[in-house]
Amino acid sequence: MRAMVYHRPGHATLTDVPDPEMTHEADAIVRVEATSICGTDLHILAGDVPSVRDGRILGHEAVGTVVDVGSAVRTMGPGDRVLVSSISACGSCRYCREGHYGQCLGGGGWILGRTYDGAQAEYVRVPFADTSTHPVPDGVADEEALMLSELLPTGYEVGVLKAGVWPGDVVVVIGCGPVGLTAMMGARLFSPSHVIAIDRADSRLGVAKEFGADMTVDDGLVDPLPVVRSVTDGLGADCVIEAVGQPETFELAMRLGRPGARIANVGVHGKPAELHLEDQWTRDITLTTGLVDTYSVPALLRLLASRQLDARKLVTHRFAFADFERAYDVFARSADSGALKVVLRP
Amino acid sequence: MRAMVYHRPGHATLTDVPDPEMTHEADAIVRVEATSICGTDLHILAGDVPSVRDGRILGHEAVGTVVDVGSAVRTMGPGDRVLVSSISACGSCRYCREGHYGQCLGGGGWILGRTYDGAQAEYVRVPFADTSTHPVPDGVADEEALMLSELLPTGYEVGVLKAGVWPGDVVVVIGCGPVGLTAMMGARLFSPSHVIAIDRADSRLGVAKEFGADMTVDDGLVDPLPVVRSVTDGLGADCVIEAVGQPETFELAMRLGRPGARIANVGVHGKPAELHLEDQWTRDITLTTGLVDTYSVPALLRLLASRQLDARKLVTHRFAFADFERAYDVFARSADSGALKVVLRP
Repeated sequence: MRAMVYHRPGHATLTDVPDPEMTHEADAIVRVEATSICGTDLHILAGDVPSVRDGRILGHEAVGTVVDVGSAVRTMGPGDRVLVSSISACGSCRYCREGHYGQCLGGGGWILGRTYDGAQAEYVRVPFADTSTHPVPDGVADEEALMLSELLPTGYEVGVLKAGVWPGDVVVVIGCGPVGLTAMMGARLFSPSHVIAIDRADSRLGVAKEFGADMTVDDGLVDPLPVVRSVTDGLGADCVIEAVGQPETFELAMRLGRPGARIANVGVHGKPAELHLEDQWTRDITLTTGLVDTYSVPALLRLLASRQLDARKLVTHRFAFADFERAYDVFARSADSGALKVVLRP
Repeated sequence: MRAMVYHRPGHATLTDVPDPEMTHEADAIVRVEATSICGTDLHILAGDVPSVRDGRILGHEAVGTVVDVGSAVRTMGPGDRVLVSSISACGSCRYCREGHYGQCLGGGGWILGRTYDGAQAEYVRVPFADTSTHPVPDGVADEEALMLSELLPTGYEVGVLKAGVWPGDVVVVIGCGPVGLTAMMGARLFSPSHVIAIDRADSRLGVAKEFGADMTVDDGLVDPLPVVRSVTDGLGADCVIEAVGQPETFELAMRLGRPGARIANVGVHGKPAELHLEDQWTRDITLTTGLVDTYSVPALLRLLASRQLDARKLVTHRFAFADFERAYDVFARSADSGALKVVLRP
């Protein structure tokens, strides 16, 4: 089969490799109907994820058709259409039993396309198949469901749900990349009074309006604090979702919350940030961090099926498998200027 | 009447001053039967609280008898025994309506003994009396109830409740001063599997065992992380309560939590701390800060009345009013070596 194989920083190629084989009775083999490229894949290519070694098939997002299952698999069989979660879950460790699959202690977590061969291939072996896939309802297209492998649950679980968005709240989302946009979509499900998007690129702020922001601020030009205060009786935002991952944007998030605010960090950070406890200790702040668990996928699939959530607009680029290397190039070059999700089909 | 009056850093004296008069229809005048000295009063005396000016009567903790009420006061009358909360609450602003009295926008919050004349006096004027006092049940002694003006609710609300202690949890409390000790008492109400106390003074660690700690660590001598891991399957604590207020102890708190931990900051901080987001962004951490609201006082009074909570052991020193200046000296000198609460009676 063909697969995108990582070799070393800067080098990944579409390569002919052997089809995957089942190695465990809880495995399933899935024929990939749609896969996609995530910002994390660009980090791998940049050499930021040393656990990814030469020869690894990349990718942790897929929708496909089951072609074979191990003897322990109970919830699916050949011919079933499934969403492959970016988070594999052993299903039986302490964290899995609490629904915190991203913290799985039993060999799961984010392993696909990192320590296991991934989904940017014609076939993928899915470990712990019963607890690492979801059946895709009729009426939900492959590429819509694909947005639930990781992207939409990340903005929703780690952003919206951890921030505890509530009707009438004023919600600030810092960063209008794909994850920030899904946080805006998710926040709208809770009927906030305002969703304020902050970014430094006009094009991204424009897209934010299509994803639920009713106010936008370019914080390279304007201090967002007076803007936020103007719609919060001078207090600050009820919820702030940080979806950038820089010390500056984190510190901005802390500054924009009102006393009692919930601040959810979704950004991937490489450096420490300064926490101004001398101001914040009195302010009844709740700050959260987290990895996506994908526990929300069944609910999100229902929202896609009932058209209360439209994930199709997240897909901005489509390529055939033969063009995989070019797809990476296009995504890498345009990630800052409007590429959201790049979908590939064999 | 006699009252402890602040003059300037290092100087407060027991002084004859006029009795307080009602200035608002929501006021009550309370004859003080017991008052106490808080660590915050020492900060005021050190000059750390510039909002306290020359001539201010100190103190924000009192139990007493109502002697007069304004025309708008509905819930008490002369002769009633009341606990005066350290937090005055207008009762009608956004935060008060949500029970977040510490963030009161209507003129309340911590005002007694700071911007209003306080409770270290024979009489105190209590603003917003209906929402700033609690009736004291029969069978609860003055000095027990007095522990609920601020101390016990602080450890309980800002520590235990914000950390979300749950049966079976492993709870770490950093700092065995009065607030840390009340956090241990409060944590025990939720039947944790272990309460681990951390401090650098043997005497305080000894006291911690009387307040609910079943394990103690002197972190000047021993790294607490392996100790915490030894009772948490190598994971770290479920809940960490920071009750010191230094960057180092805050950073220790973050280090001791397991993935998914709830970390509650109770410490009063004067400096920023480093937040290691490069490690913590994946770890599903919930970090909280906060001021006491005293919303838990009715429940805590019931626990005192039913003897499920023993606040009497918090009282380590008792003085007559005539010895107020000496009481301050004793408390200041022995706060690090065992003085918990100093109670004064006229």
